[in-house]
Amino acid sequence: MFPTKKVQSLIGSKIQVEMKGPLRHVLEGTLNSVDDYLNIHLQETVEVVNGKRMRSLGSVVLRGNNIIMIRPVE
Amino acid sequence: MFPTKKVQSLIGSKIQVEMKGPLRHVLEGTLNSVDDYLNIHLQETVEVVNGKRMRSLGSVVLRGNNIIMIRPVE
Amino acid sequence: MFPTKKVQSLIGSKIQVEMKGPLRHVLEGTLNSVDDYLNIHLQETVEVVNGKRMRSLGSVVLRGNNIIMIRPVE
Amino acid sequence: MFPTKKVQSLIGSKIQVEMKGPLRHVLEGTLNSVDDYLNIHLQETVEVVNGKRMRSLGSVVLRGNNIIMIRPVE
Amino acid sequence: MFPTKKVQSLIGSKIQVEMKGPLRHVLEGTLNSVDDYLNIHLQETVEVVNGKRMRSLGSVVLRGNNIIMIRPVE
Amino acid sequence: MFPTKKVQSLIGSKIQVEMKGPLRHVLEGTLNSVDDYLNIHLQETVEVVNGKRMRSLGSVVLRGNNIIMIRPVE
Repeated sequence: MFPTKKVQSLIGSKIQVEMKGPLRHVLEGTLNSVDDYLNIHLQETVEVVNGKRMRSLGSVVLRGNNIIMIRPVE
Repeated sequence: MFPTKKVQSLIGSKIQVEMKGPLRHVLEGTLNSVDDYLNIHLQETVEVVNGKRMRSLGSVVLRGNNIIMIRPVE
Repeated sequence: MFPTKKVQSLIGSKIQVEMKGPLRHVLEGTLNSVDDYLNIHLQETVEVVNGKRMRSLGSVVLRGNNIIMIRPVE
Repeated sequence: MFPTKKVQSLIGSKIQVEMKGPLRHVLEGTLNSVDDYLNIHLQETVEVVNGKRMRSLGSVVLRGNNIIMIRPVE
Repeated sequence: MFPTKKVQSLIGSKIQVEMKGPLRHVLEGTLNSVDDYLNIHLQETVEVVNGKRMRSLGSVVLRGNNIIMIRPVE
Repeated sequence: MFPTKKVQSLIGSKIQVEMKGPLRHVLEGTLNSVDDYLNIHLQETVEVVNGKRMRSLGSVVLRGNNIIMIRPVE
């Protein structure tokens, strides 16, 4: 399955998205939508920095080009 | 709702925009406009670095590709 | 006003442009021109690093994708 | 062979993908698919940070523009 | 003059190009050519890191999206 | 010669490619192919970090947008 199709197949599921930056910055939430640039709309989002749960963020939009890795939460 | 549509739905509302960089660099303001690249025009902007309110910046334009995360301020 | 239109409206005015990088790297000058990618041509530019005026640089071209934030100097 | 064709020729094989970031962040897995932007879908992925095997991640999608280097595991 | 036209007007002249990175990484040389992405071909290039002349590099190609700033050497 | 043409003229030759990152990360090898985005396929690649030869890597693909500088090895 193509990379963007793989991500689209996860809509409605819980995913982890690792963002670019000086720390390990991960957003975990339910995938609401994704476009061709891998811009992502997450809901019920929790922020995890260096492995520690930091904040509940609700609804967030992530810019695709600053995403390192997307994966399903099993 | 698609990620860019989600951001467009926030026009006129207060949002937080986290930018790329060595520090946690957040701009909080009223969303005036956004384009397809997620370039953003904020008004009545306040700069928050590592959680501390630093400066009132008025009107600012943020380059879309350097945005990590956009979220409504609840 | 759309983000790029907002920047175009500042041609001839003094602006501050914050660039990506490990330090707070700001260029302050008169906006000569800007294109759709937010590439910027500044004149009478002064470089400000971590809040200190460093150098007078004259005419410079800034690459749009490495711009964090653009704002008018009031 | 063109760079993207070279990567396509590795589908079904084990590859290493080095990502952008402050640490040496490598994902090793079986290449499931790749698109024109070098977005990559890996399976049976293992994460290697600074040369140490960290985690088994299963299925992951990597954003092409944050890839430094791709190479076959011999 | 538009930003890319400004750079094209410097062909044959000596310019300084500041690159993205953890150090102040500047390449100084004669501008041979530039394209629409601001990819740059320099000749008789000297590398300047944190203000110190490091190496003579001859002919180099610089990737446009990793350029912070271009300016004429007066 | 245009920047991308200059790089194409080096096919079959030994080149050095400096990549983005916290360290001086250089790949030296024989240029097999290059596309319009400056994605690069190198063969008989040697990795050089902070000036020290680290590893022989064989065949590698480098993502164009993460390239800082390309130059012929004389």
